[in-house]
Amino acid sequence: MKVTKFGGSSLASASQLEKVFNIVQADPERRFVVVSAPGKRDAADTKVTDALIQYYKRYIKGDDVTASQDWIIDRYQAMVDELGFTAKSMKKIAQSIKDLATLPIENNDFLYDSFLAAGEDNNAKLIAEYFTYRGLPARYVHPKKAGIIVSSEPGNARILPSSYDKIEELREADEVLVIPGFFGVTIDNQICTFSRGGSDITGSIVAAGVKADLYENFTDVDGIFAAHPGIIKNPHSIKELTYREMRELAYAGFSVLHDEALLPAYRGRIPLVIKNTNNPDHPGTQIVLEHSSETLPVVGIAADDDFVSINMSKYLMNREVGFGRKVLQILEDLNIRFEHMPTGIDDLSIVLRERELTPIKEEEILRQLKTKLEVDKAEIEHGLSIIMIVGENMKSHVGVTATATAALSQQNVNLAMISQGASEVSVMFVVKTEEKEKALKALYQAFFAE
Amino acid sequence: MKVTKFGGSSLASASQLEKVFNIVQADPERRFVVVSAPGKRDAADTKVTDALIQYYKRYIKGDDVTASQDWIIDRYQAMVDELGFTAKSMKKIAQSIKDLATLPIENNDFLYDSFLAAGEDNNAKLIAEYFTYRGLPARYVHPKKAGIIVSSEPGNARILPSSYDKIEELREADEVLVIPGFFGVTIDNQICTFSRGGSDITGSIVAAGVKADLYENFTDVDGIFAAHPGIIKNPHSIKELTYREMRELAYAGFSVLHDEALLPAYRGRIPLVIKNTNNPDHPGTQIVLEHSSETLPVVGIAADDDFVSINMSKYLMNREVGFGRKVLQILEDLNIRFEHMPTGIDDLSIVLRERELTPIKEEEILRQLKTKLEVDKAEIEHGLSIIMIVGENMKSHVGVTATATAALSQQNVNLAMISQGASEVSVMFVVKTEEKEKALKALYQAFFAE
Repeated sequence: MKVTKFGGSSLASASQLEKVFNIVQADPERRFVVVSAPGKRDAADTKVTDALIQYYKRYIKGDDVTASQDWIIDRYQAMVDELGFTAKSMKKIAQSIKDLATLPIENNDFLYDSFLAAGEDNNAKLIAEYFTYRGLPARYVHPKKAGIIVSSEPGNARILPSSYDKIEELREADEVLVIPGFFGVTIDNQICTFSRGGSDITGSIVAAGVKADLYENFTDVDGIFAAHPGIIKNPHSIKELTYREMRELAYAGFSVLHDEALLPAYRGRIPLVIKNTNNPDHPGTQIVLEHSSETLPVVGIAADDDFVSINMSKYLMNREVGFGRKVLQILEDLNIRFEHMPTGIDDLSIVLRERELTPIKEEEILRQLKTKLEVDKAEIEHGLSIIMIVGENMKSHVGVTATATAALSQQNVNLAMISQGASEVSVMFVVKTEEKEKALKALYQAFFAE
Repeated sequence: MKVTKFGGSSLASASQLEKVFNIVQADPERRFVVVSAPGKRDAADTKVTDALIQYYKRYIKGDDVTASQDWIIDRYQAMVDELGFTAKSMKKIAQSIKDLATLPIENNDFLYDSFLAAGEDNNAKLIAEYFTYRGLPARYVHPKKAGIIVSSEPGNARILPSSYDKIEELREADEVLVIPGFFGVTIDNQICTFSRGGSDITGSIVAAGVKADLYENFTDVDGIFAAHPGIIKNPHSIKELTYREMRELAYAGFSVLHDEALLPAYRGRIPLVIKNTNNPDHPGTQIVLEHSSETLPVVGIAADDDFVSINMSKYLMNREVGFGRKVLQILEDLNIRFEHMPTGIDDLSIVLRERELTPIKEEEILRQLKTKLEVDKAEIEHGLSIIMIVGENMKSHVGVTATATAALSQQNVNLAMISQGASEVSVMFVVKTEEKEKALKALYQAFFAE
């Protein structure tokens, strides 16, 4: 039993929907299909979700919304026309798009979520009907009926643990079930969306709920590349990745799957594969609980920008019980999340993401370090990037760090920081952002070149 | 104006005192001499300080102390006899040794300190008289008269900042001043000793107080070795070391100077030299505020045992604001000092010294990590050593870590952890203790071999 999720670009046009149908039909184990809203057909196109955001903005401003409604309804209608069938659901879809403009604006925390969710919801209706028309009995299931009951956090819904029992009942269905991704329903019957990457989250939840043998996530690439294709030309795609590796890569900028989406599948111990709708014969990237065999020590190299380092030093710092704790307390009181805290003897740095800081917060941190903790020196360094070399088998390969540092040193990359050891899955380097590209190329060459 | 401190082995016998006299006489800038108690003349000998500890123990038990008193008095007398002069101070010295056994035992927090300090104190009296006898006018100055006023913490005295003004007045003296190391006097007139390495502390305080141009610390080695001679055969001695480098090396097991002794001289910006009484022409090791010229990137490699790592992992750990702070709070509540906290994404380790833990504390830490912080996994790893590669110029040498990791990898040393970056002065490696020797040899070879 497989849960198969398709992203927006896999659902953008009739020819794409044709591919999706063929994929689902090819394997009778594909019983649950989770869909995104239609994506862009070409670079100049608008995503349905973005059109819904425009529609929402006009509605709350009191502007005329007819054009917005028509554009969205036409978008679905064009798909149906292209597919060459008469969709009974088109009437319902049109009505549902129009009905959004009847929802209360005042005291409605879920209005924005309701607009946004319509993209996925209506796409699921249309796709279910299309599958049936093509001879593959399929049924649209609203998240409420599917049992996807979530917390009341607009834009950041979390699945309630009690939902899973209800979701498991979906196993009993005879038809292929088509479930819209991206949102659930609160106990009070409100539409509430997940955070970014929300359709992946729905897929992950359904896979865990129905105890699927596999969660297939179809995108428009041949799996996860071993390095960012914007920097490395034609990187290879990773064959097999563990959840831990995936998470380390996602942390450092790999964006194929939003890492929160992995949690339900991970907890449910469901293996995952990332495949390409446009190249379904490619094996893609398997995401597994444990490697099936000896793989390379390094599976991928990720890089992420916009890091900052708060550096401080104080003579005899390491004699002070509680010094590190007090530093972290200052940050916590300012609601700042830190990433790493490398320590020397009299030195301590806090590495964090740029978005956690504001000029006022920076000033406040420096002030408190000087007055409360009486540091000798404190400064904030911007413009840093992290590079992570990831691989579960690394721990048994002592030479990985040696290979990496030699490659970086040959290219004269200055390392602001190295951290290896806490995680057995990765080695992390901090470099100045202007040196990131050079560093990434050197590392890719060192670990993956023939 | 120089402050010159001699350690116990430099003051153990007449022939050693002769060397000390020649050293002081050779340079008219040597105006302040700080002395330890007489050390061992040979391996079978007893240090005067150890004899004083025996004397103290007998005294508080109510045992007969005559033999103890006689042994100590004879020790000084033998020195005088060997030196071939009649010391008027011997009578005072003998009396002062005997007077210790008249001090109150009950409600006397400073009794042990008073016994211990007698070794240095009487040595200073004798040495001042000997210098004068040899034609170099010298005067014994008791710490109270010198203005070395300290906090009331027996065995762990700290200089009161107000002392320095009084100490500065010593500059006015015409004679060479001989000051006993290791202790000061409290505001309530009690003898109170510094912690380990206490004579070095006195020298450092006097140097800062009189604003010396140089603090000379005479030992029995040609300065500080670049690596431990117990592991590396005939290591070279370091020519020039900054205070920061010195402190990093001291932290990781170099024991030539107790690092707390550096603080007053460091704060006073007094340069320091470590020299050999038995080889005074050797330039020794200069400890400076800043390197005088381009030195090697690495000045020394230190290693220290008895480290422990508390390793924990928790899925989505890095999303939790305050996780690291809470871990450190658990330790702080148990009064445990940590050294390093390397972090991965879902992993965090705490590296600390073995002496901070007990089996009960370990159990409590693991219990709290599991119950309070709900970690997925927590374990404590014993038997670790740290190795530190130290050098201020390292930051401009990107290849240092590459060289080090390559050397370690060639010897198949498994790195439990690497930390570089917080301190610009060092790179730290954590290895299993059984691999330490192999690692240290490989690193010494890589950085210092011709």
